[in-house]
Amino acid sequence: MPSSDPIATLLETYHDLNPSVVEEFPHQNEEPSPLEFLRYVSRNRPCVFRGAAKRWPALQKWDARFLRDAMRGRKVRVAVTPAGNADAVVEQATGELVFTEPHEIEESFEDFLDDVQNDSSATPPNKAKARNVKYAQTQNNNLPTEYSPLTPDLPPTLPFARIALNQSAEEGPEALNFWLGNARSTTALHKDNYENLYVAVRGRKHFVLLAPVEMACVNEGRVRRGRFVRDCASSSFSSSGAGAVDDDHGSETLKVEIDKDGEPLPVPLWDPDDPLKHTTPYSHLAQPLRVTLYEGDMLYLPAMWYHKVTQSVGDEGFACAVNYWYDMAFDSAFWASNCFLRDVVEAGRQRVVYPELDLAGEEEGGT
Amino acid sequence: MPSSDPIATLLETYHDLNPSVVEEFPHQNEEPSPLEFLRYVSRNRPCVFRGAAKRWPALQKWDARFLRDAMRGRKVRVAVTPAGNADAVVEQATGELVFTEPHEIEESFEDFLDDVQNDSSATPPNKAKARNVKYAQTQNNNLPTEYSPLTPDLPPTLPFARIALNQSAEEGPEALNFWLGNARSTTALHKDNYENLYVAVRGRKHFVLLAPVEMACVNEGRVRRGRFVRDCASSSFSSSGAGAVDDDHGSETLKVEIDKDGEPLPVPLWDPDDPLKHTTPYSHLAQPLRVTLYEGDMLYLPAMWYHKVTQSVGDEGFACAVNYWYDMAFDSAFWASNCFLRDVVEAGRQRVVYPELDLAGEEEGGT
Repeated sequence: MPSSDPIATLLETYHDLNPSVVEEFPHQNEEPSPLEFLRYVSRNRPCVFRGAAKRWPALQKWDARFLRDAMRGRKVRVAVTPAGNADAVVEQATGELVFTEPHEIEESFEDFLDDVQNDSSATPPNKAKARNVKYAQTQNNNLPTEYSPLTPDLPPTLPFARIALNQSAEEGPEALNFWLGNARSTTALHKDNYENLYVAVRGRKHFVLLAPVEMACVNEGRVRRGRFVRDCASSSFSSSGAGAVDDDHGSETLKVEIDKDGEPLPVPLWDPDDPLKHTTPYSHLAQPLRVTLYEGDMLYLPAMWYHKVTQSVGDEGFACAVNYWYDMAFDSAFWASNCFLRDVVEAGRQRVVYPELDLAGEEEGGT
Repeated sequence: MPSSDPIATLLETYHDLNPSVVEEFPHQNEEPSPLEFLRYVSRNRPCVFRGAAKRWPALQKWDARFLRDAMRGRKVRVAVTPAGNADAVVEQATGELVFTEPHEIEESFEDFLDDVQNDSSATPPNKAKARNVKYAQTQNNNLPTEYSPLTPDLPPTLPFARIALNQSAEEGPEALNFWLGNARSTTALHKDNYENLYVAVRGRKHFVLLAPVEMACVNEGRVRRGRFVRDCASSSFSSSGAGAVDDDHGSETLKVEIDKDGEPLPVPLWDPDDPLKHTTPYSHLAQPLRVTLYEGDMLYLPAMWYHKVTQSVGDEGFACAVNYWYDMAFDSAFWASNCFLRDVVEAGRQRVVYPELDLAGEEEGGT
């Protein structure tokens, strides 16, 4: 019999038919074969390959001293935010939710790493809370460019993935990204249209995952876009000029500057870690999967899965990871079905918001 | 921007992103590797492997004489229909559409094959039209049972498929079926929840295929179930008793007996070869794919694809084929998304059928 609420039934059917945990690849310290990997891709289901990257040189070499030496004299782009919330929805004093990009600075890798480590070891810990949070998180294929001295320590592509995804050896991944920060940084819930392979190198990475069919749960509302900028008026350094501000972005005050001309952006407003806020009528039907990556573990994060990422630092007060993005397949019915779900969810939201207006329109038409 | 008609947009997006032909495997006379095959399964897209079964003993041995010898003395189950339309929607005099199963008889394979061949060679051809159509089409793993003498000429399972689909060597396919008939038989548009590998052994098989997302085009109406039965009253053999009827099912008159207690069944009412009849508001957006299998060709017919199959006879006046059914994966989002589409389509149909009733109900509630 057809369902009276197709969206609720979709969520229930999906959860009934799929495991409520992230699968663990049965062979410890091994990469999957292309065929084994394609089975996960084919089902668009995450899987963790424990220890699969354990023998990469990066895993053996990348301590703070090595990274400082390798990157000596190089400038890197760093995201600065008041609370570690880059590319996240920030609630304004007016109540408006704004998708806020970080304040971005360029500084020497050594200074950046010093700050990240010092921030982690601040005593008492809450002393750090007064300081801004720094995170190297430029997801623009930054490894071969900003961090090129580190590339020899990583495979340039993952052959099992390249072969499974039918890419030529020349192509390489769409992006190879480097991430470095501390426990104060959080990557808010979002999705990417890439097949993602994520490796924890130092520290731990904590993922919360939601399947693409859980779109109706995450409340993809359209919000304006903004960016953290220096608040010269209220900054404690405001009177000491730009130079002082540049020297210590950790202490300056940041405010949100809204992009008034930009198109509102659909972003998940629901946070699986704060599940009673910004809910939709379907949020309670979400079944977030949680998995922690330890050093040398690899996660297959399938295309279009929502993910929220937090981290714990390793022995030296920083967390560091790399990820490989491969193009997803837009053919088959997967992409088209996702758009269909979005359209049905969106139509439902509009019915909820303006029921009287719609009915009035129809009645007028009938007279 | 969200679409005002999500179903129409789904169809357009799917067709924009996928080829409008059945892909041909680039290596003639070869089976795919498990990895190559899984790429098609993963995308739920059909593919034809030309000549992949060419070297099977069945392709070399199965002429009429060999089949008669191998099957000598064995009885087989045969579908008998007035117009070759087994498991098809039949329009009654009242206008009612009924999903009609064939009249099923058991007879010796030799008699059955004689009938099929004679029917093909009837001159003038329209002389055959007065006769009922016979088709061996029991899709219940009939090869290892009814047709067991023929199994040595076929691989018991297809290793590339078994490995890709992650089945153990002991399991085998869910069913291995044998089909024999002539050009007068048609298998009406329907779908199966199996991954299907279909091989033409003698004659040609003509497939019309529609993707699962084209559900809204095929008009899956709920109709009552029926079965062709002997019409004793009007049969030309009615006075000569049951014995005579048993001797020649070719000439007896069949009528539809409706199962009055059964649940109505959802069946595609739209026929891609008669596209202006039994349409839905979406039928014109269908893009049926067409492919012909020649002797030794293999078709991958993905799970849940709608297919209509007709056939042309080979040199000896019969067409013969085999197919392997493997279990489809019900996890991932594929099955759940199909159910979701069905629910949305069904909700749309109900809105189309009773718009005034719905509105009246809402108005009453408001006063």
